Amino acid sequence: MYKYSHIENLIKKNINPITDSEIVHVNQSAGRYLAEDIYSLINIPPTNNSAVDGYLFNFEKLKLSKTNQFTITEELHAGDKYTESSYQLKNALKVSTGAAIPKGFDTVIMDEDFLITGKNIIFKKKDISKWMNIRKKGEDIKKNKKVFTQGHFLRPQDVAMLSALGLNKVKVTRKIIVGLLSNGNELINPGKKKEDNKIYDSNRYSLFSLLNTNSIKVLDKGIVKDDYHKIKSQISDLKNNCDLIIISGGASSGSRDFIVKIIKEIGAIKFWKVSIKPGRPFGFGFFNKKKPILILPGNPVACFVIFFLFGKVLLNYIQGNFSYKKSFFIVKSNFSMKKKFGREEFLRGRTFVKNGIMYVNKFYKQGAGILNSLVWSNGLIRLRSNKKIIEKNSDLEFYPYER
Amino acid sequence: MYKYSHIENLIKKNINPITDSEIVHVNQSAGRYLAEDIYSLINIPPTNNSAVDGYLFNFEKLKLSKTNQFTITEELHAGDKYTESSYQLKNALKVSTGAAIPKGFDTVIMDEDFLITGKNIIFKKKDISKWMNIRKKGEDIKKNKKVFTQGHFLRPQDVAMLSALGLNKVKVTRKIIVGLLSNGNELINPGKKKEDNKIYDSNRYSLFSLLNTNSIKVLDKGIVKDDYHKIKSQISDLKNNCDLIIISGGASSGSRDFIVKIIKEIGAIKFWKVSIKPGRPFGFGFFNKKKPILILPGNPVACFVIFFLFGKVLLNYIQGNFSYKKSFFIVKSNFSMKKKFGREEFLRGRTFVKNGIMYVNKFYKQGAGILNSLVWSNGLIRLRSNKKIIEKNSDLEFYPYER
Repeated sequence: MYKYSHIENLIKKNINPITDSEIVHVNQSAGRYLAEDIYSLINIPPTNNSAVDGYLFNFEKLKLSKTNQFTITEELHAGDKYTESSYQLKNALKVSTGAAIPKGFDTVIMDEDFLITGKNIIFKKKDISKWMNIRKKGEDIKKNKKVFTQGHFLRPQDVAMLSALGLNKVKVTRKIIVGLLSNGNELINPGKKKEDNKIYDSNRYSLFSLLNTNSIKVLDKGIVKDDYHKIKSQISDLKNNCDLIIISGGASSGSRDFIVKIIKEIGAIKFWKVSIKPGRPFGFGFFNKKKPILILPGNPVACFVIFFLFGKVLLNYIQGNFSYKKSFFIVKSNFSMKKKFGREEFLRGRTFVKNGIMYVNKFYKQGAGILNSLVWSNGLIRLRSNKKIIEKNSDLEFYPYER
Repeated sequence: MYKYSHIENLIKKNINPITDSEIVHVNQSAGRYLAEDIYSLINIPPTNNSAVDGYLFNFEKLKLSKTNQFTITEELHAGDKYTESSYQLKNALKVSTGAAIPKGFDTVIMDEDFLITGKNIIFKKKDISKWMNIRKKGEDIKKNKKVFTQGHFLRPQDVAMLSALGLNKVKVTRKIIVGLLSNGNELINPGKKKEDNKIYDSNRYSLFSLLNTNSIKVLDKGIVKDDYHKIKSQISDLKNNCDLIIISGGASSGSRDFIVKIIKEIGAIKFWKVSIKPGRPFGFGFFNKKKPILILPGNPVACFVIFFLFGKVLLNYIQGNFSYKKSFFIVKSNFSMKKKFGREEFLRGRTFVKNGIMYVNKFYKQGAGILNSLVWSNGLIRLRSNKKIIEKNSDLEFYPYER
């Protein structure tokens, strides 16, 4: 029986990250993983520039002025092209936000700090310092700096950075193909009529929605019945066409549960039963060249929770993002309960704030079949295996859902 | 000067939610907004069923047994079809997880609680109760229950629920069209050569990445120079073809800032300057029929922060999700600082855990032009307007980035 802490390491050790890459336009790069290190070829900003709309001076000349009164004849705008020499002799210039600062100037005073503005300007403010209201060349990013490391997962702000660096194309790992299969005689696709001895498949639909991102192509193989030969044929097919296979159901120890048996025949099972609630039966195996297969529980809540805990790690590692860590926050329990010592538990929780403190409630039914607990909640509460009692107001780790 | 707390309400009041809808397959419904209430037409689960692999009994008959020994001749599997009458006379049945429970049975004992299993079974466990290990009909969702309300944003677990209800199609609001425009003579598209007086546009790329979701089509109009007629023509065009217009840059009070002037001419400006840092100048306006326009700051950090704070609210309201609230957590400051009273501030922050307590650091440069602060951080720290001093270890609101 594997413990929570071992599983992540076992998964990481038993996969080979994708090394194929492709070039994409920067607008299509969010949600992808970098296949190259990124160095800056420029300074950001490229020159000293004004952070505000205001008036531009040379600090030393300003100090020598007795009247604090200047006459303005020219205005510098963001994007303006100018020759340095044309401004050398002037005492002050009007500047707008973003305007590049010519040599010989070093101080910007904001519009609102003047008594009179326009052609003749007079100060009201005394505390003036050199370089005030000026953004300095390279203060955001210096030329030749390493900005991103290979494997980095690109968020929208990272896309902004790539663009600011002048890159309109970027090298990312290729999309991976994830094969999806549901197993069970009881399963029927939604939209079909069914008898009461059957249930609608929901796992393949939540998994599809979780996987349907910019870095993944999903190969949905539908439902397969409890038939040894049909299952074997489907898994063999997925093995040849996918980078990762995800199956839900069919991994119990019943006489019609063939999944684990078949994977042992054509590949290897690394672990099968884990001491996580909800989470049994959850297995991880692989085929030749460490091509991984996740065997998720048939119960919809257990399936979702296990994918949430380990699927994201696996997907990030396959794409080369080895620094991925699931993010969590610390919240206070608004409930008390007993739990089994030695087992990690994940409750469906919903946070709320009262008097500036963030609490979490658990759904009143925590069974692995209660899909409504996932709909109600905004994240998972982790109860560590070394705990036996959860006291009210104790600190708990809360993992918010990511989408 | 508008305060943070007023802005959200002003935005909400001045838009008309989309009422057009379309039918999509449930696999394409994640990230969309429901255009109908959803009621359950079935019970989930449809019948009492076994939560485990084990043996099935009638509790009263079990109590009468003196030997605790039974002979098993038949096995019930998940999805099996059976006639109730055929099981009436038996004392015990083998059942696998998910198998429907025939009338007359009410108690399942797990495999592992038997001394001998197979045809002749003998207990080892004493504490047996009626209905143990049985999931009862409708315990997740009862027939005719309202499961989702119109306007609900569909997450992967909601898609699982729709599927479990038997729905393969669902009515959602149509995708909205968001027009995107960058304004400024200083802007150049990435991939092009540029002089040092120009900078690469990054706002349109982060905004595109933030908007490029399942419920939105982005109409990217590129960069427009500081030219009154060209800007007016582009905005007029977007007004006719979009549900929402987002412009970054050109909203300062400089002589070449035409955006606000033009919107006043062909529509209305609701507010323009706000007491949020970073966030100036940030404006909100609308055209006929409350078609909204967001005017975001040109500085990349201010642009991202303001979109993060108000763009998501606006998008949710346009799609009819009036219950949307930005999620945050409470963390402890690992820094101290002074701030301006009366102004709301949002710092780029990164969380870490030490001795079970979650702290947040702020990026060492907080200027509105420091894009690297967004790349470094995992969320925004909110400093309320009524604060003047932030003490180390004080409780702060932290808004994690969503992607």
